[in-house]
Amino acid sequence: MFDVVAFDADDTLWFSEDSFRKYETQFVEIVAPYVPVGVDIKAALIATERKNIDAYGYGVKSFGLSSMEAAITLSNGEIPAVELQKILHGVREHLTEPVRVFDGVAEVLAQVSSQFRTILITKGDLAHQTRKVETSGLSHHFEHVEIVLEKDPTTYAHVLKSLDINPERFCMVGNSMKSDILPVLAIGGFGVYVPYEILWELDHAEHPTANTDRYVELETLSLVPEWLAQQSK
Amino acid sequence: MFDVVAFDADDTLWFSEDSFRKYETQFVEIVAPYVPVGVDIKAALIATERKNIDAYGYGVKSFGLSSMEAAITLSNGEIPAVELQKILHGVREHLTEPVRVFDGVAEVLAQVSSQFRTILITKGDLAHQTRKVETSGLSHHFEHVEIVLEKDPTTYAHVLKSLDINPERFCMVGNSMKSDILPVLAIGGFGVYVPYEILWELDHAEHPTANTDRYVELETLSLVPEWLAQQSK
Repeated sequence: MFDVVAFDADDTLWFSEDSFRKYETQFVEIVAPYVPVGVDIKAALIATERKNIDAYGYGVKSFGLSSMEAAITLSNGEIPAVELQKILHGVREHLTEPVRVFDGVAEVLAQVSSQFRTILITKGDLAHQTRKVETSGLSHHFEHVEIVLEKDPTTYAHVLKSLDINPERFCMVGNSMKSDILPVLAIGGFGVYVPYEILWELDHAEHPTANTDRYVELETLSLVPEWLAQQSK
Repeated sequence: MFDVVAFDADDTLWFSEDSFRKYETQFVEIVAPYVPVGVDIKAALIATERKNIDAYGYGVKSFGLSSMEAAITLSNGEIPAVELQKILHGVREHLTEPVRVFDGVAEVLAQVSSQFRTILITKGDLAHQTRKVETSGLSHHFEHVEIVLEKDPTTYAHVLKSLDINPERFCMVGNSMKSDILPVLAIGGFGVYVPYEILWELDHAEHPTANTDRYVELETLSLVPEWLAQQSK
């Protein structure tokens, strides 16, 4: 049934979004004293991220630069540099924090990689994503690791072509409908959606309405090996 | 003689380092009024970049974050947020400035790619490097574009293996002895060094003392096609 199974990384194999929420909350606490009451600080930060995404791309460094910008704009230039320094410290801390792998992931990857060519496809910052893969203790399960700028149909098609993978025999497992499922269905592949409780607003998308025969939603990653085995029967 | 010829991008095909110097000079001008006379502001910025390179990786966003940090530290937290905003504006401007291709590059790539499999290997920020490749008007000359975190022997060996390239039939053309030449010589490949007048301090290395039979220095990129033709005779 499948030649290759690919996994997303952030919030599929390990925690990611919860750290962004933590630093978002810190940001609100740092900036609030310099902003008029009633201003939605979090919404302003997300709007700044959205404006910058084309120029900056995804990841912690982009989040950090947008945070600094939003802090200065929201405070009308009144925020002291020492407060901005706290945001910078947060960026460095965020980039170097240890990877927290989800329970049971190593077992799932061991099972899947014993039966299928297994790869990792993640989007984001090259330095940070590489560090996470290398320090996760999971990299030996993957025949190939691809860090991409954007997870759209064009990018998936390009990656599959370069690795000589037939989309019809390709299955992508991930927590983002927008990044892991819809673009893979669009190029003829299969998508296993394993939702995670928190999702970045810029990564939101509706469930698929087409190609639903090539799509399944599973409650946890531990159900993936059994589902894959059933498809091969 | 060669199956594949690879080109570096920044300061090999187009201007890059001169922009960093421009924003470095702007940084010194912005920060100087808040720093005691006699402090070497530029040296402090470079030291901050060096400290952060492992966590941040290469590129404009890393440079921007290090600039903000150095500005706050150098001014002992006294620099006003509006001055830091100028640094942030510079980051965005730097990331979105048009690519300035060196004279004659399109002709060189057309000649080389008509005779060899031709690829691009560049290190840096995924978003910025992708944007530059896509807007350079040169991407059609390349069979493959690889954006890597670090240009060391391990990375070159990995890229060549994934593209099924024999290092002994591989030639890398670039302006950085440290990133483009020495690591390629180390894995058994050939290096064509085309120096550019300015080089980032963190990218400095001495000329090779070993494997010099697989190394040549050419004054301009326009001499590359002829040199390649001679090797194949």
